Amino acid sequence: MPKRVAIIDIGSNSARVVIYHRTSRFGFHLIAQKKAAVRISEGSFDNNGILQENAIERTIEALHTFKSIISDYKARKTIIVATAAVRNAPNRDTFIQRVRKELGLKIKVIDGNKEAFFGAVAATNLLPLKSTAITVDIGGGSTDIALIEDNKVIDTLSIKIGTITIKELFFDKQKPLSKTKEYINSLLEDIPEKFQQATEVIAIGGVLRAVAKSIIMHSNYSYSKIHAFNYQYSDYAEHIASIIDAKDSKELNTLWIKPGRYDTIREGLLIFTMLLKKLGIQSVLTSGVGVREGVFLHDMLRGVGGLFPKDLNPSVVSIIDRLDMIQQPKAPRIAIMRTLFNTLKGELKNREEYLKLLKDAVKISDCGKTLTIYDEHKHTYYIAMQELNWQYTHQEMLLIAAILRSTGEKLLYKTLQKEHQKILPGKKVLRWLAFIYTLSNRLSSYSLKNRYSFHFEDKVLTIKSNSPLYLFEQDLKNLELPEDIVIRVANRY
Amino acid sequence: MPKRVAIIDIGSNSARVVIYHRTSRFGFHLIAQKKAAVRISEGSFDNNGILQENAIERTIEALHTFKSIISDYKARKTIIVATAAVRNAPNRDTFIQRVRKELGLKIKVIDGNKEAFFGAVAATNLLPLKSTAITVDIGGGSTDIALIEDNKVIDTLSIKIGTITIKELFFDKQKPLSKTKEYINSLLEDIPEKFQQATEVIAIGGVLRAVAKSIIMHSNYSYSKIHAFNYQYSDYAEHIASIIDAKDSKELNTLWIKPGRYDTIREGLLIFTMLLKKLGIQSVLTSGVGVREGVFLHDMLRGVGGLFPKDLNPSVVSIIDRLDMIQQPKAPRIAIMRTLFNTLKGELKNREEYLKLLKDAVKISDCGKTLTIYDEHKHTYYIAMQELNWQYTHQEMLLIAAILRSTGEKLLYKTLQKEHQKILPGKKVLRWLAFIYTLSNRLSSYSLKNRYSFHFEDKVLTIKSNSPLYLFEQDLKNLELPEDIVIRVANRY
Repeated sequence: MPKRVAIIDIGSNSARVVIYHRTSRFGFHLIAQKKAAVRISEGSFDNNGILQENAIERTIEALHTFKSIISDYKARKTIIVATAAVRNAPNRDTFIQRVRKELGLKIKVIDGNKEAFFGAVAATNLLPLKSTAITVDIGGGSTDIALIEDNKVIDTLSIKIGTITIKELFFDKQKPLSKTKEYINSLLEDIPEKFQQATEVIAIGGVLRAVAKSIIMHSNYSYSKIHAFNYQYSDYAEHIASIIDAKDSKELNTLWIKPGRYDTIREGLLIFTMLLKKLGIQSVLTSGVGVREGVFLHDMLRGVGGLFPKDLNPSVVSIIDRLDMIQQPKAPRIAIMRTLFNTLKGELKNREEYLKLLKDAVKISDCGKTLTIYDEHKHTYYIAMQELNWQYTHQEMLLIAAILRSTGEKLLYKTLQKEHQKILPGKKVLRWLAFIYTLSNRLSSYSLKNRYSFHFEDKVLTIKSNSPLYLFEQDLKNLELPEDIVIRVANRY
Repeated sequence: MPKRVAIIDIGSNSARVVIYHRTSRFGFHLIAQKKAAVRISEGSFDNNGILQENAIERTIEALHTFKSIISDYKARKTIIVATAAVRNAPNRDTFIQRVRKELGLKIKVIDGNKEAFFGAVAATNLLPLKSTAITVDIGGGSTDIALIEDNKVIDTLSIKIGTITIKELFFDKQKPLSKTKEYINSLLEDIPEKFQQATEVIAIGGVLRAVAKSIIMHSNYSYSKIHAFNYQYSDYAEHIASIIDAKDSKELNTLWIKPGRYDTIREGLLIFTMLLKKLGIQSVLTSGVGVREGVFLHDMLRGVGGLFPKDLNPSVVSIIDRLDMIQQPKAPRIAIMRTLFNTLKGELKNREEYLKLLKDAVKISDCGKTLTIYDEHKHTYYIAMQELNWQYTHQEMLLIAAILRSTGEKLLYKTLQKEHQKILPGKKVLRWLAFIYTLSNRLSSYSLKNRYSFHFEDKVLTIKSNSPLYLFEQDLKNLELPEDIVIRVANRY
């Protein structure tokens, strides 16, 4: 696979190009994105789905620009997918041929099951999934779902209702809501029983991202990140109902839905709520990624069964690849940190899951230095807040960021702790994690070859080292303690 | 020269190691720094300058740790310099031999003239100097000055008074201030006349950094960066006098001087003010860099006459080396920007100096993308605010940052403009610069091969391109204009 790969997707409303840079075997980073509102399906509904000449012209013009962008970024591979609008057009082959001839680009038309599959590939690799989950992607002409068990895609299904279908068949014709529901229900009937095993819905696509955004605003949720935003449907059933019932885009605006969404959000949410009811699922995990990411990852991870290796977080890998110019081995630091964690974990109720987060924090802890070593913790924190996206829950993202923001002098970053106190664990946990992180980081800053052992008893932490710690002793006075404990250096300089 | 170089300097109070990473031929970045308060001269004043055993032990212990840090960072070259405390010690050779034998490290003792020279090397390469300047570095045992003309070090001088000299000989013995001044004046008499040609003093070292910090706080200067902070002595003569007259460290604290400075700041400022008077200079430019940076740069720039090439800004080079993973050629973008600048510069009173800043902005404009392409302008701005340090005035640093923070949708970043309105040019200038930057950046985002020509007349900016601009036309609606002008696309899609 080449270093840079471009993905173009042609949807009903817009065409989009994204370019990924592979930073290493399992590291990737989005370096470019451009959207063109080509509206390829414009006028086609009144013409039996036939793509119209103007719309085709616009699309080809946009593809010309995309091609030049791809060339400017030196992406060596381009994958182009087209969904429902092209798929359902009687003149699709003429369009595809023309693109091939004029631009040398080969469009791959994918069906609803493939859409569901690619969405699921993105979800399994980039979200913290429960053991059994179902992805739901509500498009213009179809609703695509996939059943995932233990990160494997078990089955997919494409149901022939979407936002545009409902709009054209019912909403635009002012048909009664009961008729619409009847129609949707009749189609949902066909969902095989096995899809109902799932305990969580993964919400993919623009409609469900918009509703997540709306719920975040409505509920004053402190962390305004859509990816991995998790909610219980029943907590917001009323709010969602009021979006569906909204009279106009002005009313939608008061519900934190952008005016441009008026034409799709009510239809989409009607399908969504009925689907949730049918599946009997309450827990919704929002995805910031979908088909495009799935297409890219499917290609990237072909050789390894379509999944990132376990114990490898793709965000962490990518951050290190891009931003750690120090390039010191992390194993010695992690070893010190692990020993210290095992000594002190009683203070953390022996919750082993913190160890993984501490490890990831240590792995990216040098990245701030690539900006500047002065206040490096602030820069590492800044990077973490932007870029810790994949596979983490919101709590995990913020917890790693909180750890990285701490310094030996100041364990708790109060601004973050206060702002996100409903998401983060309590102060005691934050202090102890920061202490383990900063103390082990500091010890390893004098030498990566030193060996340390720790002992904690009666609130006294004894540190023993195989070589004297003159500078550490000098720096000890600048070390905040997580609570009323004492640090004793066994073999003093 | 190897990729990573360590510099250790051993001063009277502390020893310090810094490690520089060379990012390219002319790019460098500080990746590590450690300070040890070894106080090598402790007790030596009462013993004819002889370094005491305890102090030597501490220093050697610290050097052991420094050596291990240097090895952990894989720095392949280490330069160790020692100044007055070691230089003036009768037992210096014993100390040097011991360090050589026990640690394999070779200490280079440098005299006051060399100190002055290295400080001047740092200043000429990293500060925006006037044509004739004089560096002043007030140390413990000497005050080192260098005359610089057109970025060349013309002459150096080391005067045998420093903060510790004055303290021991006068302040500690409660001698009258008039006697102290008499003594200082007698030594300043020897300064050759040619040093008085300079029109600006470059203030190097801890004492003069501390006074800069104090003036920044005292005057509510909005940009709290010490490096390149410029002031007129007469504006703060009273403030400086009150520091010299301070009774105790508590009083100093109210003048924004840290308690630890009490023992040196009053002595240092007495020398400084008398020196300024003697030289007849008012303008002071504060340096955040000094001997260590000079030693490194002298080594790095040996092959090119000790100076960075003209038209190359070492901050810009280093930022690109570290943080531009996009690696697109910048020449096409600069070409578009220059053409646009030349078309519109009438709105900027034809001030050509803005072109250089716009160029540097374009050069680093992709760096934010290395963090994430979402809100990339914020990340590029964040990087610029940390790392645009060398050779710029404060106005230039903030102006480039303001340009980088702008987007096509929002030309003016009001937070920055308001905060630094006393340093930055007016809003009109900011808007036009941001417009030139974002418009040319946007045009080049569709294709680096397109050629554009511009024409500006009667408030109409006409853009002509050698290939149609479908996406640009679509995006035009999101473009804020600097004032009431119209954009016309000559060859519409």
